[in-house]
Amino acid sequence: VFLLTDFGATDEFAGVLRAVVLREAPGCPVVDLTHEIPPFDVRAGALALERAVPHLGPGVVVAVVDPGVGTERRAVAVEVAGEVASSRGPRFLVSPDNGLIGFAMDLLGGVIGSVALLRATARPATGSTFDGRDVFAPAAARLWAGRRLEDLGVPIDPGTLTRLEAPRLEVRKGEVEAEVLWVDRFGNVQLAARPADAEAAELVSEPVVVSGHVSAGARRSTSFAGDPVGGRAVRPGTAASGALRLIVDSNGRLAVVCPQSSAAAVLRVSAGDTVSVRNGDVP
Amino acid sequence: VFLLTDFGATDEFAGVLRAVVLREAPGCPVVDLTHEIPPFDVRAGALALERAVPHLGPGVVVAVVDPGVGTERRAVAVEVAGEVASSRGPRFLVSPDNGLIGFAMDLLGGVIGSVALLRATARPATGSTFDGRDVFAPAAARLWAGRRLEDLGVPIDPGTLTRLEAPRLEVRKGEVEAEVLWVDRFGNVQLAARPADAEAAELVSEPVVVSGHVSAGARRSTSFAGDPVGGRAVRPGTAASGALRLIVDSNGRLAVVCPQSSAAAVLRVSAGDTVSVRNGDVP
Amino acid sequence: VFLLTDFGATDEFAGVLRAVVLREAPGCPVVDLTHEIPPFDVRAGALALERAVPHLGPGVVVAVVDPGVGTERRAVAVEVAGEVASSRGPRFLVSPDNGLIGFAMDLLGGVIGSVALLRATARPATGSTFDGRDVFAPAAARLWAGRRLEDLGVPIDPGTLTRLEAPRLEVRKGEVEAEVLWVDRFGNVQLAARPADAEAAELVSEPVVVSGHVSAGARRSTSFAGDPVGGRAVRPGTAASGALRLIVDSNGRLAVVCPQSSAAAVLRVSAGDTVSVRNGDVP
Repeated sequence: VFLLTDFGATDEFAGVLRAVVLREAPGCPVVDLTHEIPPFDVRAGALALERAVPHLGPGVVVAVVDPGVGTERRAVAVEVAGEVASSRGPRFLVSPDNGLIGFAMDLLGGVIGSVALLRATARPATGSTFDGRDVFAPAAARLWAGRRLEDLGVPIDPGTLTRLEAPRLEVRKGEVEAEVLWVDRFGNVQLAARPADAEAAELVSEPVVVSGHVSAGARRSTSFAGDPVGGRAVRPGTAASGALRLIVDSNGRLAVVCPQSSAAAVLRVSAGDTVSVRNGDVP
Repeated sequence: VFLLTDFGATDEFAGVLRAVVLREAPGCPVVDLTHEIPPFDVRAGALALERAVPHLGPGVVVAVVDPGVGTERRAVAVEVAGEVASSRGPRFLVSPDNGLIGFAMDLLGGVIGSVALLRATARPATGSTFDGRDVFAPAAARLWAGRRLEDLGVPIDPGTLTRLEAPRLEVRKGEVEAEVLWVDRFGNVQLAARPADAEAAELVSEPVVVSGHVSAGARRSTSFAGDPVGGRAVRPGTAASGALRLIVDSNGRLAVVCPQSSAAAVLRVSAGDTVSVRNGDVP
Repeated sequence: VFLLTDFGATDEFAGVLRAVVLREAPGCPVVDLTHEIPPFDVRAGALALERAVPHLGPGVVVAVVDPGVGTERRAVAVEVAGEVASSRGPRFLVSPDNGLIGFAMDLLGGVIGSVALLRATARPATGSTFDGRDVFAPAAARLWAGRRLEDLGVPIDPGTLTRLEAPRLEVRKGEVEAEVLWVDRFGNVQLAARPADAEAAELVSEPVVVSGHVSAGARRSTSFAGDPVGGRAVRPGTAASGALRLIVDSNGRLAVVCPQSSAAAVLRVSAGDTVSVRNGDVP
């Protein structure tokens, strides 16, 4: 069972989630993907799950970022084809129905069944504010233990599952304009674009990166510190401090990075902003 | 084995604890409840453990928040009845004798045996400042592996175990005055009171919440975003931003919350403060 | 498999690492030592691993603090004698070749074999920026599952492994001058010196501690709050608040501590600074 939430580490929320899975499914390996999704940020959670899913083995994903907990939003479990990168990945995802698992579902081959979860037991004495503990973790434990999806709830039409908007991306000749999907701990700025988009736009090897606040030159490179693509060799440490690179990151996205420094600080951007990479000179 | 400490994640303390349990009890599932109890805050740790314990399966709890490490305070292991919520919970708790496990012991049916732990081996070369590693984790591993309590130390009178003061709570007609037990990551303010206390005080559906700094109106509600109790329906998103709700939280306590915002920031309170919920108008 | 990285908890990096180990080696216990080494701080990582290693059982260590990821720095796996403190510890360490595992290797009895890891599969589509996921975790999983070191890469001369400089330490009559190795969550200041160094310098029981900013009296003590060494008994709570102690910490190093307060804040030091402990009066 894989866990991804916005519960944080400060409280015991994530710990109780782990304990409930183990209580309901003794021997089940519990893997924390992360519990530090920004509070209530469903989109950030959906994107983190999309990044992680290609690398997971078989199992059940529990994803909880749930600003609507306690409302009438549905709690759902879905079964996916489970094929990922030519091997077996997770076959079930359990989550509030708010779009959190949408991108991951697609990567895992699409939905082949979905149910609205029933609360296992009525708990009037302890409210309805911790569905991670009371609904999602028990459901995941049952699926891991071999129960069928139909045993957990009422079948629903997969077409009614809530979906988030696709990442914003526009590709024109000489320009790629893309949503910032993620700024990681190291300040790397992941864009919605992929290498094929850069090729389609015919980006040059030293394009300009433009955010709402800053324009800066960058060079396309194969890694944080490696040689620029099709350019002069640059040895690690000799590049000017602060020099931006445009790389293909570990998720196959274009990312703006700054060797051993924060590209996000240089560009003054965060997730959800728009960044343009274009041919031309820094204004 | 369940772990609850104030070790934080920055250092390798918690990691070493996990490793020692596994070294002494190979195959033992190790569950982190949390390692982010505020440093030295025994009361916060005791309350977090009380909240978690009803949801744990069988096992051994190791709790370490230990301002007195290295002094003559006792290290203890206790055996409890282990009944929790009509199923089996943890049967042993291992901890410094400073009150940290007191509330949990009560929830688990009370103490049926207790010992003062002996240091497994004298370690003059590495001081006496990391009893989590040197005393508590090894003791828990042995209990998990089937050793009896009596094998680990010297029997002591359970009546001599250190206890914390009960949470402060006063219920009068028209007012509930209660200790703030916990402010969680989302800014929800958990009070020492329970729904029965609100009924006993005959609180109205829209009482006033008074902290040391702020008075604000609130409405009693079944959830973060749901209908107010006995009031007009309020759809999620339509309530005025900043509107406080008084709900029954996932531990069965009354809590002051603010949909998708921090009630603690509105009230300017933190754990240990006192909050009054009373009938009447905002002054 | 034991994990130590600078990946942090905010992103899903560490979670993916855990998942990859389990995918490649189902049933393998995965133990997080810490993922909060300061970004790119190889020395801090090497010292944390040195502190943890004596307490680990058999297994494989994966250590990733990797400012040179994507450059031509080698990825290595080493086999060590594996004897630690008269029992069995980890037998393999997997890491970038940047000195991160040097101190741990020495503690584990020295290297008896080493290889430069081959990338298991070429992944041009997803860059070369997450070797933890793509190189180190898969290699560790294979070693845990019984593969031999020689199966994972090209043998290299252990003498060519990158090593960090030994901690700075000078011992003179009446003075110990030492590198600050670590400031922990509680503000305890660990020095490179050991008790034998204090004896060699003939330090008195109430020496002076001098940092770049501050001189302050300290007393040598057996614990945070216990009796001073060779001095008058001091009961917990009666020492002046803010009084520094010089103790032997849980790693057998001398450390400057301040009961229930931060010695690092008093001395205004952080890891890498130099602290002198000397006989004499506060200037």
